[in-house]
Amino acid sequence: MTIYNSKNITEPFAAVKWESGKLILLDQRKLPAENIYLEYDLASEVAKAIKDMVVRGAPAIGIAAAYAVVLAARSAYQSSADNWREIINTELELLSNSRPTAVNLNWAIAKMRQGFDSIEGDPETALLEMAIRIHDEDIAANHEMGRLGAELIKPDSQIITHCNAGALATGGYGTALGVIRTAFKNGLVKQVYSSETRPWMQGARLTSWELQQDNIPVNLVIDSAVSSLMQSSDIDWLIVGSDRIAANGDVANKIGTYSHAVSAKYHGVKVMVVAPFSTVDMQIKSGKDIPIEYRNTEEITDFNEVRVAPNDMQAINPAFDITPAKLVDVIVTEEGIVQDPDAEKMLAIFGKI
Amino acid sequence: MTIYNSKNITEPFAAVKWESGKLILLDQRKLPAENIYLEYDLASEVAKAIKDMVVRGAPAIGIAAAYAVVLAARSAYQSSADNWREIINTELELLSNSRPTAVNLNWAIAKMRQGFDSIEGDPETALLEMAIRIHDEDIAANHEMGRLGAELIKPDSQIITHCNAGALATGGYGTALGVIRTAFKNGLVKQVYSSETRPWMQGARLTSWELQQDNIPVNLVIDSAVSSLMQSSDIDWLIVGSDRIAANGDVANKIGTYSHAVSAKYHGVKVMVVAPFSTVDMQIKSGKDIPIEYRNTEEITDFNEVRVAPNDMQAINPAFDITPAKLVDVIVTEEGIVQDPDAEKMLAIFGKI
Repeated sequence: MTIYNSKNITEPFAAVKWESGKLILLDQRKLPAENIYLEYDLASEVAKAIKDMVVRGAPAIGIAAAYAVVLAARSAYQSSADNWREIINTELELLSNSRPTAVNLNWAIAKMRQGFDSIEGDPETALLEMAIRIHDEDIAANHEMGRLGAELIKPDSQIITHCNAGALATGGYGTALGVIRTAFKNGLVKQVYSSETRPWMQGARLTSWELQQDNIPVNLVIDSAVSSLMQSSDIDWLIVGSDRIAANGDVANKIGTYSHAVSAKYHGVKVMVVAPFSTVDMQIKSGKDIPIEYRNTEEITDFNEVRVAPNDMQAINPAFDITPAKLVDVIVTEEGIVQDPDAEKMLAIFGKI
Repeated sequence: MTIYNSKNITEPFAAVKWESGKLILLDQRKLPAENIYLEYDLASEVAKAIKDMVVRGAPAIGIAAAYAVVLAARSAYQSSADNWREIINTELELLSNSRPTAVNLNWAIAKMRQGFDSIEGDPETALLEMAIRIHDEDIAANHEMGRLGAELIKPDSQIITHCNAGALATGGYGTALGVIRTAFKNGLVKQVYSSETRPWMQGARLTSWELQQDNIPVNLVIDSAVSSLMQSSDIDWLIVGSDRIAANGDVANKIGTYSHAVSAKYHGVKVMVVAPFSTVDMQIKSGKDIPIEYRNTEEITDFNEVRVAPNDMQAINPAFDITPAKLVDVIVTEEGIVQDPDAEKMLAIFGKI
């Protein structure tokens, strides 16, 4: 892994890239203060980068994992041209276990695995083509979701978004922010509110930055001011991404999404969940079965390595929560939208894909 | 103003004290990492301390203001033994405007003013007696509220509290934390959850610390995890303090209270607001008329003087929100409790006091 601070990289939103045979990740823990790119040529180091949140956002994690499979195959093939398909499993296991909630991670690994059997000789070129296709298709999916979601937005809309479901969380353009971007281009957005998203501050750091770069009017609020904002202002939509959507339409997303959705229901604000089809997990019946990641409590007892809470403080730090389908007005994917989602409607749209 | 870091002060919760003719405030911005006491002999400096949140919590602000009136009277009397009642107004005005939302501040100043006319000669002794009485009565009120509130709590209760409505926010013992302390002594509390309370982290820093000192089981959560906690755990009560209660039972309290109250309603969790009678403002018809303080946005764009959000970021930083009476199950004061508050019930209990 090499660290370099590039001033030549002109695309500010390229969170995941492949260059000169290496995976390059924009270190999202440092944004927006620092623009640091990290270079990876080992899948095990990519697994650690995913766990440590160098790269985050369900679709971006999936794309990074796809490229990491290329790196893993290269190492495995170097070890043994005959047995690389077995040798690779150790690293794929590591990758697979790096974070539990986002289904896109294992979706991408499984998709890459499907190519293994038909490959002859050195697998790198064929697998790299597959990873690039996953990446490209994600960007295309974002634009399609942007188009579909923006069709639901009326002029002069005020929108709240939580965490970062933007270009940084995806192959590019964004899911929730993709809809906001398209709606803004179409002249429909009056104001966006970005909730800061404790403890990692993705809203304050990443969403604010992305929207600012695009000159979309954005105002930062703390997470707990969102209800009060819905009470006092005329908010039209809560638009968020997702890390996994169950077969009944329940949605796992960044902790705080459920809180905002409950408030949205109370105030008559509509809730839109935007995620690629790779986020839909038809194998999982309901939100109750989605594994929720509990992270190190120092993420909330400390800030920037400064202790905030007293020593020996007990804390609970779930990284995600489950918003039941009944609080969701519409799920937008590139394969179509589901209004007032439930198991039947989800099956009708996604069962045949 | 003198700064000293005392190891001899054995009462960890004495946020406001009078010693050797000076007002002493525990610097709550530094807790729990540092235990620093600041000494004041000028009312104008106390006004600044209130504005800067050296002392915070509506009742504690009221008590600090009462002592500051003593300091202001001393200065005014030194300037002119005849005209101190006029001269004092400049400093009282400063004090009065230091923070807008907590009504206790102006309540205490008005109460102290009532004594001015009957004083002959040097006012210090008489006014100090009045300030000490306000302080003592607040502590007594907290214990009475603790008793009344705890009567509503059933065994094995799980309680969420927001911000700090503890000994540090009052003359001692606490309002919401007073109820929790009494309920814990009575063996009724299974678990307390303290929500961190962005941006000042009063929950993470102060409430956690107070409860830890008293060996009351406390778990820290981020504000936006409270809804998810209510969804997954068997939470009985949300118990909070207040900065002002309107005549119809609407409650102003730390930003995030409204969010928690909306979630409480959705999950069938009961909401208790605990505040001394000095917090009840029968002159204010409803929450809509309570002035909400908007603070410097750097409180949310920065953390510990480190920039978090991008430069030139727009932000909104309300310090309080309004929880309408319909979301409140019970208001507890030392003068009695109001179940399912509304204007009529509030008037019946508080109109005659």
